[in-house]
Amino acid sequence: MSDHATGPVGPFEPPYYSVIFTSVRTEGDNGYGETTDRMDELVADVPGFLGTESARTPGGIGITVSYFRDEESIKAWRSNLEHQAAQRRGREEWYEKYVVHVAKVERSYGFVRG
Amino acid sequence: MSDHATGPVGPFEPPYYSVIFTSVRTEGDNGYGETTDRMDELVADVPGFLGTESARTPGGIGITVSYFRDEESIKAWRSNLEHQAAQRRGREEWYEKYVVHVAKVERSYGFVRG
Repeated sequence: MSDHATGPVGPFEPPYYSVIFTSVRTEGDNGYGETTDRMDELVADVPGFLGTESARTPGGIGITVSYFRDEESIKAWRSNLEHQAAQRRGREEWYEKYVVHVAKVERSYGFVRG
Repeated sequence: MSDHATGPVGPFEPPYYSVIFTSVRTEGDNGYGETTDRMDELVADVPGFLGTESARTPGGIGITVSYFRDEESIKAWRSNLEHQAAQRRGREEWYEKYVVHVAKVERSYGFVRG
């Protein structure tokens, strides 16, 4: 949910899971920045959490991808009560719309300039 | 590869595939914008292409996610010669680094403000 995380992260050893969260924000901050910082802290403690990366085009969409080792770690994060409260607040205040895709990564690779 | 596509796209009917491309750019445009426009045109003609969405934080990372119906449609796009030439040029000129994750979407859902 954060716009703060750096990246790219990975690649990790497949299989693992990606949660793709694509959103259009409402106007104003409304406590969003503070909450995303807190969510960054919390998710880092979830067993099986691998990393997160986020980008937002000014005036456009934001994409945050979080990576987890398995379904169990996604479930642990989804059942966190503080996270659930943040999700509710997201629907009430922060997002015009969003789409979530939960996907099992089958292969991955990276490039770094030599 | 585009920074131009709007979004969010989907959700689509699972299963389908996501290709997550996360990158750090080099300085300057160097023909990047023109090529991404062309790639947007080309990928739209690939059978099984579902949509693409892209965000880039100024001075930070970019994330582009492209969605395809199945492995066959990803393979068709990967084997496009003009796309392969753009990928080579990406490594030579446009990207400091990137990571690609190919993942099978198992579930997805969306929210739109009422």
